[in-house]
Amino acid sequence: MAKPWATFGVDLHLEPTGGGIRRGLTDALREAVRSGRLAPGTRLPSSRSLAADLGIARNTVADAYADLVAEGWLTARQGSGTRVAERVVGPVADGGGVGAGAGAGVGAGTGVGVGASRPRGAVDSSPGAVSRPGVSGRPPAPDPARPRTPRLPHPPAPRPAYNLIPGTPDLASFPRTAWLKAARRALADAPYQAFDYGDPRGRIELRTALAGYLARARGVRADPDRIVICAGFSHSLRLLGAVLWARGARTVAVESYGLDVHWNLLAAAGLRTTPLPFDERGTDPGRLTDQGAVLLTPAHQFPMGGTLHRDRRAAVVDWARRTGGLVIEDDYDGEFRYDRQPVGALQGLDPDHVVHAGTASKSLAPGLRLGWLVLPPDLMAEVLKAKGGIDACGTLDQLTLAEFLTSGAYDRHVRAARLRYRRRRDALVAELARRAPKVHATGIAAGLHVVLRLPPGTEHQALRAAAWHGLAVHGLHRYQHPEAVVERGDALVVGYGTPPDHAWSGALEALCAVLPE
Amino acid sequence: MAKPWATFGVDLHLEPTGGGIRRGLTDALREAVRSGRLAPGTRLPSSRSLAADLGIARNTVADAYADLVAEGWLTARQGSGTRVAERVVGPVADGGGVGAGAGAGVGAGTGVGVGASRPRGAVDSSPGAVSRPGVSGRPPAPDPARPRTPRLPHPPAPRPAYNLIPGTPDLASFPRTAWLKAARRALADAPYQAFDYGDPRGRIELRTALAGYLARARGVRADPDRIVICAGFSHSLRLLGAVLWARGARTVAVESYGLDVHWNLLAAAGLRTTPLPFDERGTDPGRLTDQGAVLLTPAHQFPMGGTLHRDRRAAVVDWARRTGGLVIEDDYDGEFRYDRQPVGALQGLDPDHVVHAGTASKSLAPGLRLGWLVLPPDLMAEVLKAKGGIDACGTLDQLTLAEFLTSGAYDRHVRAARLRYRRRRDALVAELARRAPKVHATGIAAGLHVVLRLPPGTEHQALRAAAWHGLAVHGLHRYQHPEAVVERGDALVVGYGTPPDHAWSGALEALCAVLPE
Repeated sequence: MAKPWATFGVDLHLEPTGGGIRRGLTDALREAVRSGRLAPGTRLPSSRSLAADLGIARNTVADAYADLVAEGWLTARQGSGTRVAERVVGPVADGGGVGAGAGAGVGAGTGVGVGASRPRGAVDSSPGAVSRPGVSGRPPAPDPARPRTPRLPHPPAPRPAYNLIPGTPDLASFPRTAWLKAARRALADAPYQAFDYGDPRGRIELRTALAGYLARARGVRADPDRIVICAGFSHSLRLLGAVLWARGARTVAVESYGLDVHWNLLAAAGLRTTPLPFDERGTDPGRLTDQGAVLLTPAHQFPMGGTLHRDRRAAVVDWARRTGGLVIEDDYDGEFRYDRQPVGALQGLDPDHVVHAGTASKSLAPGLRLGWLVLPPDLMAEVLKAKGGIDACGTLDQLTLAEFLTSGAYDRHVRAARLRYRRRRDALVAELARRAPKVHATGIAAGLHVVLRLPPGTEHQALRAAAWHGLAVHGLHRYQHPEAVVERGDALVVGYGTPPDHAWSGALEALCAVLPE
Repeated sequence: MAKPWATFGVDLHLEPTGGGIRRGLTDALREAVRSGRLAPGTRLPSSRSLAADLGIARNTVADAYADLVAEGWLTARQGSGTRVAERVVGPVADGGGVGAGAGAGVGAGTGVGVGASRPRGAVDSSPGAVSRPGVSGRPPAPDPARPRTPRLPHPPAPRPAYNLIPGTPDLASFPRTAWLKAARRALADAPYQAFDYGDPRGRIELRTALAGYLARARGVRADPDRIVICAGFSHSLRLLGAVLWARGARTVAVESYGLDVHWNLLAAAGLRTTPLPFDERGTDPGRLTDQGAVLLTPAHQFPMGGTLHRDRRAAVVDWARRTGGLVIEDDYDGEFRYDRQPVGALQGLDPDHVVHAGTASKSLAPGLRLGWLVLPPDLMAEVLKAKGGIDACGTLDQLTLAEFLTSGAYDRHVRAARLRYRRRRDALVAELARRAPKVHATGIAAGLHVVLRLPPGTEHQALRAAAWHGLAVHGLHRYQHPEAVVERGDALVVGYGTPPDHAWSGALEALCAVLPE
């Protein structure tokens, strides 16, 4: 049953409930509408597009839509497509049940680990540091005080030609035309008051659009009044760090693997980070005690690439309820799963104890500096105080992203990006099988990166070879928390989403060249 | 000599040096090029536009340009206008003399007080607070628990129809078309790496454009490497507060009049604010002792509206040199002076002890959330650390503002805005003379607001009348530091820049109606 649903759930977050394909699809759509996860007015993908996504016949989708139109759940009108009917049947909007079942349900059946991707190098506190040489690296300027050597005796270390460092999407495929179109509309529609100092939570248009999107795509129980727009996940984490410290917390549990920039941001807020154990079911919350919070990547552990086991999802939430601790869910790449529908947001299990943190950095671009927090109600005032009581993000980008979401441009972009990354991942796995059979890709088929397990003792050698082949790539060791007790083995963390299309095959070729045969 | 130069210096920041008009203009332009304040490649205004600005004959400007082209200082090419020649004659770039003389020189001859405008209500830490009723105010939602009274016995307080609260420009005149055009170009020209995590100082394109603009328009000794882009002045002040605290400072001197949001931001950083005395020459720096910093609005004291006397400018810098204290120059509305060229930036006197803080909030719109700091070199690392080592502002807005500046759209917009605000100010002063002769407009002819002195004991009455006439306006009392010892008298602080054009005459009419006759 899992196979035909393929990448289905990423947009609609449906759960097929058994039976034939048509019946399964019909039931899943009906349930999504009934529960409110698909809000009234939501436009569904065209039958052609959904069928292609699912790998099923277009007629099957068209029939399922027709059934639901007949039942009154959907409406279909020439020119405006198929939409969720405005007549509300079940508990919708911010009712208690929305998304909760989804969040719990989709966790079932997955059994790997946990998942977050932001590049170590991307947030570097030394301004001049060039941490991603393939992208931003420039050769150092010649020192005018030193006479120029006409020819160096040894060739200098080559400048990386390819970049497989994880943490960014393919920036060359940023949808410039669609973004500009959305910006034009947003500028034309904005009341002049939109140019004023704004609501410290962020623009209501964006918070509303996000609430709808997060509910249907990630099973988040979202309400515009619970959302705060931030300047990317780093800003979100800084705000939460300040709030936790002000509440008296001094320690935050983190995963054994993650990003040091996040640990450093928490440290800057006065919070010690202590790693939780990690095994094949993901991060083990059994060691959670009196920490003020736990920072997790439940849908797709970064960098290890698993999903958090459902028992552990439940255990984390139990801990939070029992102790009053906060769960911070870093849902950095929830849009990108290639084999099945993604695990729903942990926040859906308990919106009063889980902060859902999302970002446009992976789905669109880090340069937008747009992220969001979906907060438990009692945290809002404290987060806004930490934010300085002021909106931090530009109005125009916020309005443009809102327009991008509501017009369907975001879904279109994500669908195209998903296809691009999925093909890259498939090509990578196929090429490994052919040329480096001792190397194994691990983790779920998702996201923008993969961990490649190497034969013992070969990581350092592979990294050295990469440097000399002009390939920027990271070893797993740099993603390990200094206090973590784990048997990590040798591995590379490969960000296959990073290169532009034209450089991808070259990057893959370079990667294969440096892997042990 | 002062008269004919009128609004001249706002864009080019020139000092006429005596002699005939043509010779004065020629000398001033030559000096600006020689000193580097007009960087090579800078495009000069058309002779028609400059002549209109100065109220002189177009031929006079054309002749001055021709002289300087002949001398090699300028170049003129059909289609690309008149530009500063690329051949560098004097000390340019970040040489020691750039802008310093300008900063000192333009202070001469002014003799009033000091000048910063950000609205008290704009940065409000309580999310739901409606602090600017004319703009964002909504009547409170009816309480569903209370039965609706069909008709209230007394009319409710009227909802303000007009907004004269200072701190925002006319948002309805935000240059949407020009901005979109710049955004289109910026998007088209940006390398794909621009969408990545960026330089924590901000985009180099914007820092470079700002360095050129601030040098020519404000006499700032700017270098792109000394500039940090921030999310508005509030963000700038938060960063500086964190840096000062980390350096061991616990007290910051402020002006007797100012914005409580600024005092509160400093307090949130752990810094006590102590007001300096204020008199007809502006803020008195004589009481500066061991404070870690002083926050000033030297070009146009907010809200009192004077410029800081040149002796006091020198004294502030002396104090900083002597004690190692930091001068924070809040240059919020330096673009808008109507009677003469604006006082140059205090930073020009000593870039190693003065932080120049600017913003697009008054010249364009607060919703852009774009401001900048020009820092002493030894402060850069600390500010970036406080910033979290990451760029906080969206790439696209930064690139768009850079394009806006370099294309000349910024100058065009500022010129149009200056004309708009100047006319409003003139109309206000004329109307006061006719209808409220006991009320006196004080402060220099500049900026977006004016202080109206009222007969003793009438401020409270005027504010009450304003509320009942649907006019949102502030009394002077709310801008006074709680610890300030000043004889303030009764006054209104009128933000004549705030209303959209269509509401301006109504707002002025409402204002006159509530003033004592």
